[in-house]
Amino acid sequence: MAGSGFGTIFRITTWGESHGPALGVTIDGCPAGIPLTEEDLQPYMERRRPNAGPLSTKRNEADRAEILSGVFEGKTTGTPISILIRNTDQHSRDYSDIADVIRPGHADYTFDAKYGFRDYRGGGRSSGRETAARVAAGAVASKLLELCGIRFDTFLSAVGGIPVPDEYCADPVSCPEIAALMGEARENGDSVGSEVCCRISGVPAGLGDPVFEKLDAKLAQAVFSIGAVKALEIGSGIAASKMRGSEFNDAFVLSEEGTVQKMTNHAGGILGGISDGSDILLHVFFKPTPSISAPQQTVKGASENIELSIHGRHDPLIGARAAVVVEAMSAMVLADALLVNMTSRVDSVIRFYKT
Amino acid sequence: MAGSGFGTIFRITTWGESHGPALGVTIDGCPAGIPLTEEDLQPYMERRRPNAGPLSTKRNEADRAEILSGVFEGKTTGTPISILIRNTDQHSRDYSDIADVIRPGHADYTFDAKYGFRDYRGGGRSSGRETAARVAAGAVASKLLELCGIRFDTFLSAVGGIPVPDEYCADPVSCPEIAALMGEARENGDSVGSEVCCRISGVPAGLGDPVFEKLDAKLAQAVFSIGAVKALEIGSGIAASKMRGSEFNDAFVLSEEGTVQKMTNHAGGILGGISDGSDILLHVFFKPTPSISAPQQTVKGASENIELSIHGRHDPLIGARAAVVVEAMSAMVLADALLVNMTSRVDSVIRFYKT
Amino acid sequence: MAGSGFGTIFRITTWGESHGPALGVTIDGCPAGIPLTEEDLQPYMERRRPNAGPLSTKRNEADRAEILSGVFEGKTTGTPISILIRNTDQHSRDYSDIADVIRPGHADYTFDAKYGFRDYRGGGRSSGRETAARVAAGAVASKLLELCGIRFDTFLSAVGGIPVPDEYCADPVSCPEIAALMGEARENGDSVGSEVCCRISGVPAGLGDPVFEKLDAKLAQAVFSIGAVKALEIGSGIAASKMRGSEFNDAFVLSEEGTVQKMTNHAGGILGGISDGSDILLHVFFKPTPSISAPQQTVKGASENIELSIHGRHDPLIGARAAVVVEAMSAMVLADALLVNMTSRVDSVIRFYKT
Amino acid sequence: MAGSGFGTIFRITTWGESHGPALGVTIDGCPAGIPLTEEDLQPYMERRRPNAGPLSTKRNEADRAEILSGVFEGKTTGTPISILIRNTDQHSRDYSDIADVIRPGHADYTFDAKYGFRDYRGGGRSSGRETAARVAAGAVASKLLELCGIRFDTFLSAVGGIPVPDEYCADPVSCPEIAALMGEARENGDSVGSEVCCRISGVPAGLGDPVFEKLDAKLAQAVFSIGAVKALEIGSGIAASKMRGSEFNDAFVLSEEGTVQKMTNHAGGILGGISDGSDILLHVFFKPTPSISAPQQTVKGASENIELSIHGRHDPLIGARAAVVVEAMSAMVLADALLVNMTSRVDSVIRFYKT
Repeated sequence: MAGSGFGTIFRITTWGESHGPALGVTIDGCPAGIPLTEEDLQPYMERRRPNAGPLSTKRNEADRAEILSGVFEGKTTGTPISILIRNTDQHSRDYSDIADVIRPGHADYTFDAKYGFRDYRGGGRSSGRETAARVAAGAVASKLLELCGIRFDTFLSAVGGIPVPDEYCADPVSCPEIAALMGEARENGDSVGSEVCCRISGVPAGLGDPVFEKLDAKLAQAVFSIGAVKALEIGSGIAASKMRGSEFNDAFVLSEEGTVQKMTNHAGGILGGISDGSDILLHVFFKPTPSISAPQQTVKGASENIELSIHGRHDPLIGARAAVVVEAMSAMVLADALLVNMTSRVDSVIRFYKT
Repeated sequence: MAGSGFGTIFRITTWGESHGPALGVTIDGCPAGIPLTEEDLQPYMERRRPNAGPLSTKRNEADRAEILSGVFEGKTTGTPISILIRNTDQHSRDYSDIADVIRPGHADYTFDAKYGFRDYRGGGRSSGRETAARVAAGAVASKLLELCGIRFDTFLSAVGGIPVPDEYCADPVSCPEIAALMGEARENGDSVGSEVCCRISGVPAGLGDPVFEKLDAKLAQAVFSIGAVKALEIGSGIAASKMRGSEFNDAFVLSEEGTVQKMTNHAGGILGGISDGSDILLHVFFKPTPSISAPQQTVKGASENIELSIHGRHDPLIGARAAVVVEAMSAMVLADALLVNMTSRVDSVIRFYKT
Repeated sequence: MAGSGFGTIFRITTWGESHGPALGVTIDGCPAGIPLTEEDLQPYMERRRPNAGPLSTKRNEADRAEILSGVFEGKTTGTPISILIRNTDQHSRDYSDIADVIRPGHADYTFDAKYGFRDYRGGGRSSGRETAARVAAGAVASKLLELCGIRFDTFLSAVGGIPVPDEYCADPVSCPEIAALMGEARENGDSVGSEVCCRISGVPAGLGDPVFEKLDAKLAQAVFSIGAVKALEIGSGIAASKMRGSEFNDAFVLSEEGTVQKMTNHAGGILGGISDGSDILLHVFFKPTPSISAPQQTVKGASENIELSIHGRHDPLIGARAAVVVEAMSAMVLADALLVNMTSRVDSVIRFYKT
Repeated sequence: MAGSGFGTIFRITTWGESHGPALGVTIDGCPAGIPLTEEDLQPYMERRRPNAGPLSTKRNEADRAEILSGVFEGKTTGTPISILIRNTDQHSRDYSDIADVIRPGHADYTFDAKYGFRDYRGGGRSSGRETAARVAAGAVASKLLELCGIRFDTFLSAVGGIPVPDEYCADPVSCPEIAALMGEARENGDSVGSEVCCRISGVPAGLGDPVFEKLDAKLAQAVFSIGAVKALEIGSGIAASKMRGSEFNDAFVLSEEGTVQKMTNHAGGILGGISDGSDILLHVFFKPTPSISAPQQTVKGASENIELSIHGRHDPLIGARAAVVVEAMSAMVLADALLVNMTSRVDSVIRFYKT
């Protein structure tokens, strides 16, 4: 199945495994004329990079995104933008001990069930490394969004159920409660769940479509396409299911300048699948990192019950590095919706061609 | 934007407004040879019908789904199945009083922003009536799934935050706590939020794809494409974000028959975007019905702040009738994944063509 | 396979068989605000209607296209436009004699091979009647194109290899040579091949895409999706393969007004897959109508060689009624390209959202 | 527009310009388990390579296709196969003299019209070099087809209107008439048109779909997506439009083994859009190479009429090297149709999941 593509007009296709020579993405349908260099991509790659803190793996991947096509004299040309990221940090070790073990919480069992075999070196296509390509593509989408005034705030908002006290906290682990939790998990060879919040501002009203391509539906596909996501709330989320209509509905009011405003934003910026001009709010919930050194019961060679300890460099939680992946995927949804929406009214079509 | 289509091989396209002559759906890509009559559709249409209880509107829509194509001598032919549902219950009343009022919680404002105007009679394309077409299509998908051993249990699981005590409770409102809540809401001209649970059993391992077409990602798009959904949990959902890895990971074990089994199902039946053979578990959270008779503040004619009371026949909650819509959308995702997955291995392809 | 849909933004899905109650089309992604009534569709339906002349069948179908959704107060709303065409002229006769005969030149054998059985009444989904839905959709596309200054001239240009002497000839059969050919074919219970020419004027430069979605590539898919088409030429067509580059290349020159013009149009209006502003020229070649009363050798019940004579009302040639189908399909390609092209440049995107 | 993707299940996305560092393709949806190495690709790349003869350019590109993902231990894994081809032969020369000249027969004018500017170095995305990526992908598709018994014969069949006397002629130019034509063209700094024939054998009956995804319609899109194609015939092609039905229709007959056979193959292997089991026959017609050194009239800087001579290494005709591109594109269409067709019947679906 052609399941590595996403988007209608602004469309990406990713490729690559954790232990191959490289991975990458092709962005098709990006408008011509956007100023773009490899330096624009790097800050996003850095946000995905493991840092020194206890919230991430100790590998230092230093991913570098190379642009191989679609940019000429510093601007996008309208043709496909191919971005390549080399896998520089592969240890050529012997994987034969785990080749036929199915790791709990991983896709080993399901890949075998689907394809009959799998690339058993470190997760292959289902590895978190695959998201490096998404982040590079998200950086391009963000350039387009920025030019239209759309901005993102995305941050780790809770660790193991403990809220990060300040959303712009540079180092959430400095919060004593979280530090204690992380220390304990590390000591036990364990990992923890996490939560990411994403707020999108400056979104014009009118993006999205009424039925299956609702803006929230596409954001939901985008977010759940990130490995380890187990829940998503938009706006008030689960709380909405406990409210009365009189409480939940966002009243409209004329502002002093005569524009229509919402007095609250329980809807999270989307009504009937279409953006309403207020901030879009997403809460994304991640399961704990599946690779842990604490012993787990599992099956080897489809014939033997064993106890498994997974050693190596693994993030103790997923949300810290995945925040930028949530942002990248959301940026892609918005970029696509932004372009598609230009075709909604015949008067815009006529104006485009008659002037 | 062509946003009224859903699916790759098993693909539906819906059409129709709440106040037009009819609405419907075309199912393209349904395999040939499935026994199908209009009677197969009716039980699903009935589940979406408003009943006499206080949980649903007092209208009695009695939707009848007519099959116009794609079935010959009682079997699907492999060509598009067109299903038509007439809008028999439209009151030809004067809508001029609400034509330029934007109703809180509805898509009025955003449709105007996108298209420049809208069909102001009762919600138009963004009305919940649109889901009647989805339910008819879901009934066809369910026929296909049934033949492969896949079954659904979908039910209203909470009202206004109060859990329905028994999942197979025929009349959730008989639960005294819920009855009291509903009575109070009705008295105040108000509505309440709700929650639906969907459990899918008998799913073979291997459905879904590793990246953007993950089975959970497509279920998420499917579910959030239903108006009023504000949150989705898969498996343990938000609770997963508060767990340790050692707690969340589902251990594998050999059964007595020598098959690989999971000891728990926190993952909710999907690992790495691919079904693992255990039950798929969805929790879907709905906002309260936006149409309430309690007064709300809003804007008329883009120029005047007014107080609005919406009268008419509206469900006091959405989840009761939307449960079958959740099931229909999930059935479509699974039917599509079931067909696509047949192409995953070259040995299946060779076997198909060489024998 | 979901093979009954066509287009990316302006997307149609057709359904229906020759002998079911009705057939139809859903147009998704049509911009809002186009004035549209059923009367706009009828002239196109009339062009597809069999007339009294010897070039077409004697049935008088009088197809009536009903709009069931997507239009409100005389304008498209941006939501799907569903159009229904009833099959009023079905003879409820006994088909058991032909149920297991495979007719030469028809899709009987291949439908059986694909689906295991078929709707044997008059062609089912592979009947030319299916094109009625395309013509209705093409009428909607043409409304959009007209507003942007794009016009079509489509006509029967040859019959049985004899050129129609005057392209705007109302009754090509009045040409004596063609009349003689047709008379002879009728006498022998035979049919003849034909050719249609389609010229599209007023196309702005810039429509189409550089690689797989070249404007000529999509026109080719569109044209070959019409049953019985066996060849297509664009611009000089086959003659181009016999020319020198110095002969074929269209020289550019500055016009007196300072615009860039082509001195010739061997390219047929498309360079590198993108429209160049000059007329688009298509020549479409149709095989003879496959249903003939002259005896043909074939197989019955997969076990018996028989001689078959097909009686009934069949057009003696296909091109006369298919000209409007060629136009409709081409209109859909252009409408889609027109909308998609609005997203090609970032300055257009910024202007759209910033003003 | 996302116009660089092609196919539904077996889907490719190409990227790259003639003068960037590299170009490539991602194949998504290829079944797992196909034996594949870079050596499998090379024979196809060689067929596209310019050879020493007068029919092709004198450059010696020696394209090498590197597989970056999707293959593990010599077999496809079911995940995307990324193939990279470096542009090793770029001359870093000064292009400023042609940067604002629009070359006749090229896409310069239309790229400017669409995107506002273009990569002016040697054609950019619209260069024939882009087809190198298609050929690599076609080699993968061919591996799959081979395993199912499908074979191709593709060859240059005419040059400047002169038929190649023997279809398996290794060096068509050895034919004296063609050699004379080529010599004369070379002397005049001119180029010639050409024709390619593609015959596909061993195709099972049942591939393709009845309406817009007809096998011939997808082949037509595939073929016309190759730059310079101006006409396509399937089966008898244009000749069909000059025949009688009694002449054109292919009679069916029971073979001695009791199978249904066609006595002739005017249809070219496709009936009603679906393969009928006989050979598929395509004739593809190419315009002359647009780059010629003979002087041409054109426009510079949108303000000046000039006379242009294009020097450099250009093929004197397109068909010689494009034959393998026609084959590659056709292979992709068939591979996709082969996979999609597996979902046509419910009994196949049940058998797949129940055994």
